[in-house]
Amino acid sequence: MSRYRFMDDYSEGAHPRVLELLAATNLEQQPGYGADALSGRAIALIREATGNPRADVHFASGGTQANAIALASMLKPYESVIAADTAHIHVHETGAIEATGHKVNLVPARDGKLEPEQVRATLAAHGDEHMVVPRVVFIAQATESGTLYSKTELLALSQACRELGLYLYMDGARLGPALASRFNDITLPELSSLLDMFYLGGTKNGALLGEAIVINNPRLQDHFRYHLKQRGALLAKGRVLGAQFAALLEGGLYFDLAQHANAMAARLADGLRPLGVRFLSEPVANQVFPILDDDRIARLRPKYDFHTWARVDASHAAIRLVTSWATPSEAVDRFLSDFRALA
Amino acid sequence: MSRYRFMDDYSEGAHPRVLELLAATNLEQQPGYGADALSGRAIALIREATGNPRADVHFASGGTQANAIALASMLKPYESVIAADTAHIHVHETGAIEATGHKVNLVPARDGKLEPEQVRATLAAHGDEHMVVPRVVFIAQATESGTLYSKTELLALSQACRELGLYLYMDGARLGPALASRFNDITLPELSSLLDMFYLGGTKNGALLGEAIVINNPRLQDHFRYHLKQRGALLAKGRVLGAQFAALLEGGLYFDLAQHANAMAARLADGLRPLGVRFLSEPVANQVFPILDDDRIARLRPKYDFHTWARVDASHAAIRLVTSWATPSEAVDRFLSDFRALA
Amino acid sequence: MSRYRFMDDYSEGAHPRVLELLAATNLEQQPGYGADALSGRAIALIREATGNPRADVHFASGGTQANAIALASMLKPYESVIAADTAHIHVHETGAIEATGHKVNLVPARDGKLEPEQVRATLAAHGDEHMVVPRVVFIAQATESGTLYSKTELLALSQACRELGLYLYMDGARLGPALASRFNDITLPELSSLLDMFYLGGTKNGALLGEAIVINNPRLQDHFRYHLKQRGALLAKGRVLGAQFAALLEGGLYFDLAQHANAMAARLADGLRPLGVRFLSEPVANQVFPILDDDRIARLRPKYDFHTWARVDASHAAIRLVTSWATPSEAVDRFLSDFRALA
Amino acid sequence: MSRYRFMDDYSEGAHPRVLELLAATNLEQQPGYGADALSGRAIALIREATGNPRADVHFASGGTQANAIALASMLKPYESVIAADTAHIHVHETGAIEATGHKVNLVPARDGKLEPEQVRATLAAHGDEHMVVPRVVFIAQATESGTLYSKTELLALSQACRELGLYLYMDGARLGPALASRFNDITLPELSSLLDMFYLGGTKNGALLGEAIVINNPRLQDHFRYHLKQRGALLAKGRVLGAQFAALLEGGLYFDLAQHANAMAARLADGLRPLGVRFLSEPVANQVFPILDDDRIARLRPKYDFHTWARVDASHAAIRLVTSWATPSEAVDRFLSDFRALA
Repeated sequence: MSRYRFMDDYSEGAHPRVLELLAATNLEQQPGYGADALSGRAIALIREATGNPRADVHFASGGTQANAIALASMLKPYESVIAADTAHIHVHETGAIEATGHKVNLVPARDGKLEPEQVRATLAAHGDEHMVVPRVVFIAQATESGTLYSKTELLALSQACRELGLYLYMDGARLGPALASRFNDITLPELSSLLDMFYLGGTKNGALLGEAIVINNPRLQDHFRYHLKQRGALLAKGRVLGAQFAALLEGGLYFDLAQHANAMAARLADGLRPLGVRFLSEPVANQVFPILDDDRIARLRPKYDFHTWARVDASHAAIRLVTSWATPSEAVDRFLSDFRALA
Repeated sequence: MSRYRFMDDYSEGAHPRVLELLAATNLEQQPGYGADALSGRAIALIREATGNPRADVHFASGGTQANAIALASMLKPYESVIAADTAHIHVHETGAIEATGHKVNLVPARDGKLEPEQVRATLAAHGDEHMVVPRVVFIAQATESGTLYSKTELLALSQACRELGLYLYMDGARLGPALASRFNDITLPELSSLLDMFYLGGTKNGALLGEAIVINNPRLQDHFRYHLKQRGALLAKGRVLGAQFAALLEGGLYFDLAQHANAMAARLADGLRPLGVRFLSEPVANQVFPILDDDRIARLRPKYDFHTWARVDASHAAIRLVTSWATPSEAVDRFLSDFRALA
Repeated sequence: MSRYRFMDDYSEGAHPRVLELLAATNLEQQPGYGADALSGRAIALIREATGNPRADVHFASGGTQANAIALASMLKPYESVIAADTAHIHVHETGAIEATGHKVNLVPARDGKLEPEQVRATLAAHGDEHMVVPRVVFIAQATESGTLYSKTELLALSQACRELGLYLYMDGARLGPALASRFNDITLPELSSLLDMFYLGGTKNGALLGEAIVINNPRLQDHFRYHLKQRGALLAKGRVLGAQFAALLEGGLYFDLAQHANAMAARLADGLRPLGVRFLSEPVANQVFPILDDDRIARLRPKYDFHTWARVDASHAAIRLVTSWATPSEAVDRFLSDFRALA
Repeated sequence: MSRYRFMDDYSEGAHPRVLELLAATNLEQQPGYGADALSGRAIALIREATGNPRADVHFASGGTQANAIALASMLKPYESVIAADTAHIHVHETGAIEATGHKVNLVPARDGKLEPEQVRATLAAHGDEHMVVPRVVFIAQATESGTLYSKTELLALSQACRELGLYLYMDGARLGPALASRFNDITLPELSSLLDMFYLGGTKNGALLGEAIVINNPRLQDHFRYHLKQRGALLAKGRVLGAQFAALLEGGLYFDLAQHANAMAARLADGLRPLGVRFLSEPVANQVFPILDDDRIARLRPKYDFHTWARVDASHAAIRLVTSWATPSEAVDRFLSDFRALA
């Protein structure tokens, strides 16, 4: 029996309903480059879900692509992006933002989050033509550290951005699990209304691939397809992305899948807690960070794939267990049972 | 009954066997970012099909992306690409090459093709630091004009490039139909052996999306994954591209599909020719360019979608009919029958 | 005695009055980066000379730098520049425009010039997101072929640009000699009023280095210093550029120098014409293109440096003789005398 | 009487001998673009001064330009520069490095310096294609904080770079004062031998403008003029930069000027110290950072221009006084006398 992966939320393909819609519509002839009926349906569903009938919606193939195109589309050559030093665009995108010519202004993250004062301070420190002009604030929900911004925090950030003439952009790679978290206190329409642009992640929540870029600010909607095409993001068979988001948004499947991912994470946490396991941070969505002794970590490895996340002391480390729409409760239960057997 | 599209070769989804393999492997857990077993299988099949066991093979989502990343990976900042003025990178990629910082040196195409003397002349015209240094020759097979390079022409181009210290790169968006053409006189391994880098097109020959970049020149293989990631081309679920190429290359399906596309084009041409129709150019692969009078073109439009390609005289134009792996012979026959009824 | 150079108009240093002002103000303490009094004086003089008191004026060190920064400042990532295929930005700037990410759309020049219909046709050919959006029309006065746009031609181009929503930009590397030409029929204020942005060339008309970028269109004035700084064009001692333009514009020296350059070219032409020499094109400013037999060209070489410009027939070529503010009439007379002695 | 500026080391023009050589050679005809005899002389003198007869030497107009071109010339698209978070390229160049497409990896500076362990740690943290590949280490001597690397520190950094396959690059905007410092313990040839590339600053040490880029590593010498031209740094009258460096290097004037700048700074410090003034850091070259109470700072302002550098406590701040080759001892003495009168 092969090892079970709790490595990430993209170890499987797509939710069956996504594949079914792709198969069911496979031989329908459709126009290319996103002018197809499936993309149209997906766009309508996303506008409905985000509560903005005038949103401009586009699809990209992955998060790095979505971030680079979205951010570069908002910036003049001398403008920059403010981000936490844990931001995916800083740490894990191979300099994709800089490759479009733009600096990322880093501030030290607290729990993976940016704070309005940090934004204000960054702007205040950039005063003349020897420095870039920060123009966009980049956040992620859930953050790269697995935490959530509260509604209060998001309102404060959004208000600061509007006061300061900055755009607020959100990376929503894990927006599904964030919204489905029992700690979440903001709805998608409320959140969307605070953002100039964001993407709703498909890859990590049931799609084969795909992220939906939502542009709320009308000033940023102009010529966006040109940016997509120039950066290689406009698929000839745009239907492939459209159909997936249509399947995911139809009937709220997207949110159900996130709910399941979170439930599996909670099941892991709730199973470990009575065994005396403590956590690096409170599990809020589909990531769990139990602190284990090195011996147990080593003994789990033959049966499970996971990241060692952070060393805690000489003999303990936090590991990261990620669940997804595809995680069967059996896998969780087997893990818990194996874990109990270690002692 | 809806209009039948002879517009392009990407109006449908994927060949059923592609969808089947995606479905069959959907819940297998696989590592991300192309380290999966399906991509491994596809790479092995592509190495076999191209005859180069040491080729470096990567997958991209579309042709514009593949071209921009491949070309930029070969160039220093002051280097450029030589291309025919009909080249897709010049005409239809929204300046994607220039967006990576590089000039495209254009030469007037004859039948969509570049000739060795044009390459030599371009190089000779670039002599000092006030001009870029051409480093890559870009060609397409089939060309953007629907024509084919012969083996002799390709050998001459390749030899010129090697003499002049240039890399030869090929856009293979329609390489399948090109290889399957009855006018083609070069095998895939022969062709591949002449090229430093090229891509084998999936999107237009049976895949949902995907192009396979094949790097033969070992000097160009270094760090290619970094280029892919930086430009947003590395999919978290790399399996999606791998599985499709595995399905397409397995048992030569890729070539069968191209064969079918060409056969449908030939069926169209062979059906029109006895009716007195002439062609803008000899149909060689999956595109047919019949010259029709404007009245007939207008009367075909309610039932068929196609491009008007080029005006021939005051009352005649060439239209473009494209067939694909998905074109049923019934659609061709219906077109011919409708055409006959026009007279 | 060393060979005399008729190679170009930058073989000497600066006009003595330029050096004198640099020396006279050398030890005055001044603020850096262009905030100095000398730059202020130069800006005022340029506003006066161009007739636009609200023009934004900046200095750059050379023409390639000025063009690249000016053009990139006007363009969004997917926008491009229309230029004649003889344009300096296309031929002799090592892909500097493309290095900022932008395509140059070429049209075949007639006598080095662009025509409104070519601009219209280029725009008409760019219709969707698969193509760039042309946004700026680039011209040079004098052109790179040594010709002049007439007032009528410039009015027509400007009107076309305004109708089409395009910016009109002019490279004025040789604007001095152009304005001083006896064939010129447009004043600097008239010309400036037709242009959104242009540069007034200093390097080739009496300065050590320096070009003055004039931004007439208020929409293009924003944050220009940031573009300059980011591209390395903001000199710590901005006074060096300011002082030179102050010296050149003060009392119209700039125009006197151009007048002299043209007069020396005319003296060359007028001296050669009676000897039966014909010209590739009518000498209009500070370049003369006499057609000579190869033998005479070879016998002139030991005493004079010049470019062979274009072969005319098997035994004749046009050479290019360039004069400047620094050309002494003695050098011209010596050339004519040596030429007469060849026969 | 106007206020005296201790703001920076570029408030005056050039040292008189620089102007004299420009004037003396002004009407000599010379080839363009750096092929002139004056540039040749300057290059020979720089090779001699740096002890590397095979160094490739080029001239740029300013530090931001020199840094951006030099660094970009060493990097592939996915490669980055490691720099202290006080580095000029990070803080004061308007994102010029990022505008060439490259990330700057920041490490916290201690006294403006980078340490080998920080370089090693940065490299160790970049392990796969989701991250950039650090390739160049950027340092400045003197640093942006006005401190000096010792010979031991430079040897250690250089050795670390060689072990790790990194290039070591130095911004020498203030290399003159650094070498002339009484705290300096490394000669220019010794320093140069540790560096793959660096620039010797002219603008801040007696030139009107100009920096000399010295490329020691033969692998980095290829096609450098193309980089210069493409980024707008190749002046038509290259002689302007060549003559200045010829004048500065001839007879060691460059070092004498730096010596003077430092002596004036020492005279300031030595004059202030007996008056009970303490310094933010020990004055090592041509910058002095006295800590003064706010009242005195305010009372100095009407007569002197200087930066307030850093707040020290509620009522005290460090100011920055910069001296240069042009600072007369009278200005220093007047400052000291005015300062004494404040008490």
